[in-house]
Amino acid sequence: MTEEEICVGVIGGGRIGKLHVENIVKNFSNVKIKYLADIKTDHLEEWAKEMGIIKLTTDTSEIFEDAEVNAVLIFSSTDTHIKFIKQAAKAGKDIFCEKPIGSDIENIKEGLEIVEQNGVKLMIGFNRRFDHNFRRVRKAVDDGIVGDPHIIKITSRDPAPPPLDYVKVSGGLFFDMTIHDWDMARYLANSEVKEVYATGQVLISDEIKGIDIDTAVAILKYKDGSMCTIDNSRKAVYGYDQRIEVFGSKGATMAENDTPNNVVIYTDEATKRDKMHHFFLERYTQSYIDEMKEFLKCIEEDIEPPVTGKDGLKAVQIAMAAQKSLEENEPVELSEFE
Amino acid sequence: MTEEEICVGVIGGGRIGKLHVENIVKNFSNVKIKYLADIKTDHLEEWAKEMGIIKLTTDTSEIFEDAEVNAVLIFSSTDTHIKFIKQAAKAGKDIFCEKPIGSDIENIKEGLEIVEQNGVKLMIGFNRRFDHNFRRVRKAVDDGIVGDPHIIKITSRDPAPPPLDYVKVSGGLFFDMTIHDWDMARYLANSEVKEVYATGQVLISDEIKGIDIDTAVAILKYKDGSMCTIDNSRKAVYGYDQRIEVFGSKGATMAENDTPNNVVIYTDEATKRDKMHHFFLERYTQSYIDEMKEFLKCIEEDIEPPVTGKDGLKAVQIAMAAQKSLEENEPVELSEFE
Amino acid sequence: MTEEEICVGVIGGGRIGKLHVENIVKNFSNVKIKYLADIKTDHLEEWAKEMGIIKLTTDTSEIFEDAEVNAVLIFSSTDTHIKFIKQAAKAGKDIFCEKPIGSDIENIKEGLEIVEQNGVKLMIGFNRRFDHNFRRVRKAVDDGIVGDPHIIKITSRDPAPPPLDYVKVSGGLFFDMTIHDWDMARYLANSEVKEVYATGQVLISDEIKGIDIDTAVAILKYKDGSMCTIDNSRKAVYGYDQRIEVFGSKGATMAENDTPNNVVIYTDEATKRDKMHHFFLERYTQSYIDEMKEFLKCIEEDIEPPVTGKDGLKAVQIAMAAQKSLEENEPVELSEFE
Amino acid sequence: MTEEEICVGVIGGGRIGKLHVENIVKNFSNVKIKYLADIKTDHLEEWAKEMGIIKLTTDTSEIFEDAEVNAVLIFSSTDTHIKFIKQAAKAGKDIFCEKPIGSDIENIKEGLEIVEQNGVKLMIGFNRRFDHNFRRVRKAVDDGIVGDPHIIKITSRDPAPPPLDYVKVSGGLFFDMTIHDWDMARYLANSEVKEVYATGQVLISDEIKGIDIDTAVAILKYKDGSMCTIDNSRKAVYGYDQRIEVFGSKGATMAENDTPNNVVIYTDEATKRDKMHHFFLERYTQSYIDEMKEFLKCIEEDIEPPVTGKDGLKAVQIAMAAQKSLEENEPVELSEFE
Repeated sequence: MTEEEICVGVIGGGRIGKLHVENIVKNFSNVKIKYLADIKTDHLEEWAKEMGIIKLTTDTSEIFEDAEVNAVLIFSSTDTHIKFIKQAAKAGKDIFCEKPIGSDIENIKEGLEIVEQNGVKLMIGFNRRFDHNFRRVRKAVDDGIVGDPHIIKITSRDPAPPPLDYVKVSGGLFFDMTIHDWDMARYLANSEVKEVYATGQVLISDEIKGIDIDTAVAILKYKDGSMCTIDNSRKAVYGYDQRIEVFGSKGATMAENDTPNNVVIYTDEATKRDKMHHFFLERYTQSYIDEMKEFLKCIEEDIEPPVTGKDGLKAVQIAMAAQKSLEENEPVELSEFE
Repeated sequence: MTEEEICVGVIGGGRIGKLHVENIVKNFSNVKIKYLADIKTDHLEEWAKEMGIIKLTTDTSEIFEDAEVNAVLIFSSTDTHIKFIKQAAKAGKDIFCEKPIGSDIENIKEGLEIVEQNGVKLMIGFNRRFDHNFRRVRKAVDDGIVGDPHIIKITSRDPAPPPLDYVKVSGGLFFDMTIHDWDMARYLANSEVKEVYATGQVLISDEIKGIDIDTAVAILKYKDGSMCTIDNSRKAVYGYDQRIEVFGSKGATMAENDTPNNVVIYTDEATKRDKMHHFFLERYTQSYIDEMKEFLKCIEEDIEPPVTGKDGLKAVQIAMAAQKSLEENEPVELSEFE
Repeated sequence: MTEEEICVGVIGGGRIGKLHVENIVKNFSNVKIKYLADIKTDHLEEWAKEMGIIKLTTDTSEIFEDAEVNAVLIFSSTDTHIKFIKQAAKAGKDIFCEKPIGSDIENIKEGLEIVEQNGVKLMIGFNRRFDHNFRRVRKAVDDGIVGDPHIIKITSRDPAPPPLDYVKVSGGLFFDMTIHDWDMARYLANSEVKEVYATGQVLISDEIKGIDIDTAVAILKYKDGSMCTIDNSRKAVYGYDQRIEVFGSKGATMAENDTPNNVVIYTDEATKRDKMHHFFLERYTQSYIDEMKEFLKCIEEDIEPPVTGKDGLKAVQIAMAAQKSLEENEPVELSEFE
Repeated sequence: MTEEEICVGVIGGGRIGKLHVENIVKNFSNVKIKYLADIKTDHLEEWAKEMGIIKLTTDTSEIFEDAEVNAVLIFSSTDTHIKFIKQAAKAGKDIFCEKPIGSDIENIKEGLEIVEQNGVKLMIGFNRRFDHNFRRVRKAVDDGIVGDPHIIKITSRDPAPPPLDYVKVSGGLFFDMTIHDWDMARYLANSEVKEVYATGQVLISDEIKGIDIDTAVAILKYKDGSMCTIDNSRKAVYGYDQRIEVFGSKGATMAENDTPNNVVIYTDEATKRDKMHHFFLERYTQSYIDEMKEFLKCIEEDIEPPVTGKDGLKAVQIAMAAQKSLEENEPVELSEFE
């Protein structure tokens, strides 16, 4: 192989960390995973061996201090993201960090400054930007096929609510789930978000009343006058419902849901198809591979990542404006959080 | 024929009046159109003869005074609706009135009171409630297939903006165009609207700036906690885009657009279909016939109309709340207009 | 109205005759139905009155002898078609005749000769040529969008078999049901049929064994080398399944089934739509109106009908070749029947 | 890993051989590829190293003689298949062999006998049986959803014809391309093929006249009376068109084409989607992985392969009957080739 090897250290061996590691092992033969760091590592030993990970550690500083390591992949809990970003940046490592980038705006800004000072790359894992359907919609916008966007619509519904314990520490629906949609709203538009009106309810299960909401709708206004609607639910019993639409001066484009097959069944009762994909892992399989491919390409070709730390920050700022809007039941200017 | 004849007087021979008259002539052989009243009648003579209309008149009182007339069909300009409703009610005639029922809430309420006092029927022409697609969605809700509605979505886009002169006297997008959607939002839900947040922009043509908006989105909250999003545009270049969606605890149901044919063409460039219907007359042809059939049935069987004067009033109240919300950029409680 | 009146005499007041009469009454105000002739007329009296038919008769010669009559519409049983065509032609009346034109080739040829000698128009009721979907496919072929046709595919399945008594006198599946498809195969192609291979089975109900088949497939070869497959069933439990496809050098085009609505329902079980139309009257409603409109236009504008007597003959010839192919289990040249 | 390792030798490093090797390396970590044998190996060295193949050889006997080798994967040219099958069977190795199994029926039968005598497994690479769409159709048949199959329809069209040089040695369209469809016709049915009528033409390019055909249609009759139509073209300019349909006593089921995305674009011209997949590698990617997974499972669990040598033989017999039918233009009983 003529490709140069990239040596990475991974922080966080939970579900999403494992997903990324397995994608790398299967798809990118020029990546060497030298470290996997986690708070506990015993349960990861067998799997790490299978993956060919060289060293398991509970000490992240090993990664930062190892000169061979080119890049750090951060899949730990949200509250640790900025800390590790700062350390990695200071150590001169390129960084891939899962969304959301953090939860405290001042802290995030500090992190981004350190990234900039050290001239390293930082890419945020908004994997949906790399989905084949959503990319095609963005391309139609880029190609001018639909003209200037006027109305953007995002539907994003989970198949089932997470456990109550998770909800309690999730930061709330707007930070945990809608965070993808705040970013998608920016990805699809030709303008920045100016104002947010968001509202929500507990409609699925009373047990989260007072803790969080489970159903939400929002309107975003962009600086160029275009508008966006978002609707979320924690429980779409028919599957993982992920659709977007861009309506513009010259047309409209819509991404429908993917399905496990294209088979139609006709009976004396109805015309039927199988349900859409049920889980994000099935629907966004390829998008996770493609975002990692893009990150690796940025390192190899020394170019700017397609989703930057600033994008990570913006999504958090919109989430904050939405949270305030929900609480005060009025539209909130994004400038309040900038 | 065993069906009893119904004798009607028509007020208003404009586009929508003619449409209804032609539907009656073609489809309801037991209806006798005895009068057509309009401000001017010369230009209507030939057409009225073809339609078998017995008498053309500029004097609406002829209709109210004729004991043979069972029902009055009001297709005149909005500002005259309540006046004619009152006169018809006092004369004991059943009434079909085009939307919107009026523009002044006190005036509308007076009209409804007189209707009630005189025990006549009043049906408002929200024809979309009789569309085959939208009825099917409502049926799915009624059948409990989608469970309790949580999120309702209405997309309603015209193919091209009306002339500027029309816009100036239209009462504004929320009264003229969205009025159908305010009603649809009530038709699809299992609960009444409680609050409205609406916003809009001029994105299509600057000439209406200061007069009206041409693109709008809105969020409605219902009393049971469910929510609705509406999006409108005066100019969808690809046709008359009319879609609805009800998402609930047990599933979701969506009405897609009708198309002139079901033919797909595959070439080395793309997979293509012909555009959706371009105009409301093509899309809602059958719904106009079906709403008139329902009205005639109400007279024949002496039952309550499926769209009452109160429904007409409610749509106007929501439009007013939306207008205020647009102007003040904050959510408005519907109770302010009740 | 400036349109000139057309005076017609109708022969045959069965299901299809009534359908055409009702279509004329509703849609063509310039047509006067002066006669309805049938073997018995008592049961038709009330209906004929409603339709405004001037005279009911059991004597068809009244129609042929009445100089006011411009055109004769033949909806009687197949075995009487040619007899009435001859009489009408001799009387100088234009003729609309239901499919199939007849069952005896020599007899049909005689009829066509008399039509030609008398210079009257003869149109055969292959209504599917006027279906909005199939016309769109033909237009795509005419426009050259799919290039030279290579493979044509016709699927034509009834929702339920006719009664055994009907089957016994139907002339067989290839003459009664596939007759539409033999014509469609000619309508879609740019070349004439040269050879037929047809085969069939009794798969639905044993009661018709020895009398007819209920399931069939056929291959047609055209003179230009292109080919066609046809498949038929008397019993598609999911509805009236009518699809066509033209595959050519530059692409392909397909007509899908029409459905009563465009609503999709998503549940935790499946994605569902309502069944396609169940009956030919629902599916081909407009095509019957449109074919009559074309016939009337041919009279008014003195132009050649779009489906001629020769087209009627060709379909019967193909049916005969198919029947022989079925019986002898080998391909049969159409020239044997020319 | 607790899975036992399977040691394989691969024969043939052409396009399809490489595809399988890469699939194994990416997806099945318990498979050790000990040998890759080909007539020449120089050009394969770098790639084999990347794949972790232990030994490149031009001497296939090395594979058969190595006791460590559990299974042999045969991807060499068709004329060598049976020779290697015999050798592998005698050496006690399980066998995966690409389609078609061979071209001489006696020779194939000899091979199958030796396989049986030696008690090894033999699976034929009819990958389409493992396609997610086609499997779903088969499942609907198995589940009885469509009842007894009456009509099966297979459309199988390539995007572009192979080079003339390839066509000359391909064995003809019925052996090279339709071979998949002959197998699919058996996979979808509940009965064995009894008779074939096949016909074809040169419609795409005159250069293959006298050598082969490029467009074909066929009718198969099964022993239970059900029927199948197949249509093939070497050049569908809009992509790799692969559809199947099973129509039965209780319904119908159809597999539509897969597309690279689910995005729809609406403009003032048309409603558009991107073209379907263009090439078999894109469309059948997963099916190649899944068939190998099944083969490995058969070895691990010591069970009968889902596609046996007899299946390989049957497809060749049908191809032969089709070829005779084409040449003599009459239906041919399959028993002639059994």
